[in-house]
Amino acid sequence: MRSVITLTSDFGLCDGYVASMKGAILGISPEASIVDISHEIKPQDIHQAAFVLATAVPHFPPKTIHVVVVDPDVGTERPAIIVKTVSGYFVTPDNGSLSYVLKPYLINPQPSGGSVSVKTGFKSELALKVIKITDRSFCQSPVSNTFHGRDIFAPAAAYLSIGKNLFDFGEEAETIEMLALTAPQNNPDGSVTGHIIHIDHFGNLITDITSSDITQKRDSAVIEVGKEHIKGISKTYAAGPDLLAYIGSSGYLEIAVKNGHAASQLAVKTGDTVKLCDLHRG
Amino acid sequence: MRSVITLTSDFGLCDGYVASMKGAILGISPEASIVDISHEIKPQDIHQAAFVLATAVPHFPPKTIHVVVVDPDVGTERPAIIVKTVSGYFVTPDNGSLSYVLKPYLINPQPSGGSVSVKTGFKSELALKVIKITDRSFCQSPVSNTFHGRDIFAPAAAYLSIGKNLFDFGEEAETIEMLALTAPQNNPDGSVTGHIIHIDHFGNLITDITSSDITQKRDSAVIEVGKEHIKGISKTYAAGPDLLAYIGSSGYLEIAVKNGHAASQLAVKTGDTVKLCDLHRG
Amino acid sequence: MRSVITLTSDFGLCDGYVASMKGAILGISPEASIVDISHEIKPQDIHQAAFVLATAVPHFPPKTIHVVVVDPDVGTERPAIIVKTVSGYFVTPDNGSLSYVLKPYLINPQPSGGSVSVKTGFKSELALKVIKITDRSFCQSPVSNTFHGRDIFAPAAAYLSIGKNLFDFGEEAETIEMLALTAPQNNPDGSVTGHIIHIDHFGNLITDITSSDITQKRDSAVIEVGKEHIKGISKTYAAGPDLLAYIGSSGYLEIAVKNGHAASQLAVKTGDTVKLCDLHRG
Repeated sequence: MRSVITLTSDFGLCDGYVASMKGAILGISPEASIVDISHEIKPQDIHQAAFVLATAVPHFPPKTIHVVVVDPDVGTERPAIIVKTVSGYFVTPDNGSLSYVLKPYLINPQPSGGSVSVKTGFKSELALKVIKITDRSFCQSPVSNTFHGRDIFAPAAAYLSIGKNLFDFGEEAETIEMLALTAPQNNPDGSVTGHIIHIDHFGNLITDITSSDITQKRDSAVIEVGKEHIKGISKTYAAGPDLLAYIGSSGYLEIAVKNGHAASQLAVKTGDTVKLCDLHRG
Repeated sequence: MRSVITLTSDFGLCDGYVASMKGAILGISPEASIVDISHEIKPQDIHQAAFVLATAVPHFPPKTIHVVVVDPDVGTERPAIIVKTVSGYFVTPDNGSLSYVLKPYLINPQPSGGSVSVKTGFKSELALKVIKITDRSFCQSPVSNTFHGRDIFAPAAAYLSIGKNLFDFGEEAETIEMLALTAPQNNPDGSVTGHIIHIDHFGNLITDITSSDITQKRDSAVIEVGKEHIKGISKTYAAGPDLLAYIGSSGYLEIAVKNGHAASQLAVKTGDTVKLCDLHRG
Repeated sequence: MRSVITLTSDFGLCDGYVASMKGAILGISPEASIVDISHEIKPQDIHQAAFVLATAVPHFPPKTIHVVVVDPDVGTERPAIIVKTVSGYFVTPDNGSLSYVLKPYLINPQPSGGSVSVKTGFKSELALKVIKITDRSFCQSPVSNTFHGRDIFAPAAAYLSIGKNLFDFGEEAETIEMLALTAPQNNPDGSVTGHIIHIDHFGNLITDITSSDITQKRDSAVIEVGKEHIKGISKTYAAGPDLLAYIGSSGYLEIAVKNGHAASQLAVKTGDTVKLCDLHRG
């Protein structure tokens, strides 16, 4: 079976950067099937990369190798890592890009406090391995100071895909960098305060509220977002009102404007809060 | 020979949606060669998807499987269909996305009246099969209400590509949804009134007038578009004047501004009319 | 080993143009691995295509076939060519699109004077072959006047990839079209005047100054760009000041704004000059 290697980056599509990574992969692993997840991650936005990656990963074959390069600290001492999980391999700078994918594996997935990103350890019972890439024989020579996607991450993924052993790349690490992700908060009055974690191509608002956070009945739920109130959680786009809420394809509560762009029309942005309450309470 | 599966959607390239479809395909059909036609179809613009698809289809091998997902009614009762033609297979919601591809196969390809889209039957002598996808064993489980591209259309295409029989997916249908496409109109004075049906990346205007609609001589033809008149139909971009008309690569009369953006410069849009007449008449 | 074919064009991603080329390739060479370099080259900007191509080519396997189609003179008498080099094959209109790739092979790589593009010959000791595609049996029939990417260049690349002999496509040519590229200029006071040759997706400014042009010490170098002065050449993005200069991943001196867009913030554009001098001299 051909190996699948995915690529996620903030490199855009107007330069030769993404192609250089693909060339580097095909030189080592000519049979690899390379799939772009997205290269239109906003420059330096590790959180967006982490989220977009996590929505796609569950739909790939379990031995897929995912390369994620949003890397403002390229060339510094931040480690390059390979992470092995039951849902695939990940090759990335250790900067929080796997925060959504690794949530279930971590002892403390929601570091509190003001820190943007912290190191955290792993639940020992789960089959998670983190390797620091230190053996430069798997890298392009010389390694540039500004493009490790091409010189370290793409070659490492390619060597993995042709069967190189995980432990040949370097030593195991005990911790990994995690972004301080938001989490929905249960309020004393039974309402839930969530947050917009992603705005998609359609302008739909994806929140951090999942089905399991919703104790309200679908018909009597009320969602407050921007200056608007939405009554009820719809089953489909077409069945709902023009401004509607529904459970999206990744299991999160989403808000959309039918044939419109919710983020623009509601004037909201990533990080803004969304409140979920009940018509019959408070 | 490796199966080719193409993808056309309005999903854009900044989310994990397109990659999720590709992951779903590769999990079922690891040898498939997946080609993007476009994911930058304007949100919910089925007409644009139908046109762009039709320009690419003739250039693919005849057993290619084309997945087309511009699907504002996802989750409702609109059927999911597979269409088999001599130029390939199509996997799509039944919402008019095949209107340009299927024109030659249909009894009434130009439904008149105000209806945006109508059901129409097929010319019986042509080898066209339409199957409604009803067997959910070929779908991802569970099927979401908002992303059938990932959960129904991509898996169906993948199963087709590994040899599943068309009739295993469901029952045959006798009709298909068609958009009310424009057609050029012959006027009593010998002129032809056509319409702009697509504006491409360069700002070039593609009209619904084809070579066979043009009775004027190339040198004495006059094209009225916006507030401009173009004299003559040029053979190439370089040979023409700055604002020029020519027969484009899909056989339609096109209008371009050399090294410029015709749609912006002429302030015209899809649906606007274009008139073709003769210098020596009227 | 599967053949790799890359594509570079100004076709954008919202039409069926790129997919039509891929369909044409897969019909002839179904096992080809097709990689996009970029289709977001600015319309008709051959210089940008030439530069972007050259940054990616060194990272592909040496037998890769690169198709480059930015072709404002499509349909005219400008030749279609195949160029064989030690770093791969190139299939393109003869319009300067290989200017950066072929610099080392050419007798006169920097044609002086006002001419935008000139013919120049080759250094005879280097294994460079240029073939004019004249045998139409390797083209789509009929060949359109406006889309040779689909009808000539893609099929030619596909036939090359399945082993057709280079000399079957047509006669050898002795010269090739070259853009008049800028070059850094050494000034009497020891400073160097370079030029911005590319602005990338991040807004970073890539100049034509390479490491070998820099005689200044990294710490005492001063770069003048727009109305700003940058002191020192940094090793990484993270280690530098907010506005920084460094040697980029293709070996050119680059200028960036950390987490910002240098081109916008400095109000500079491609072609603008950049001056490199020394803190301790003049």
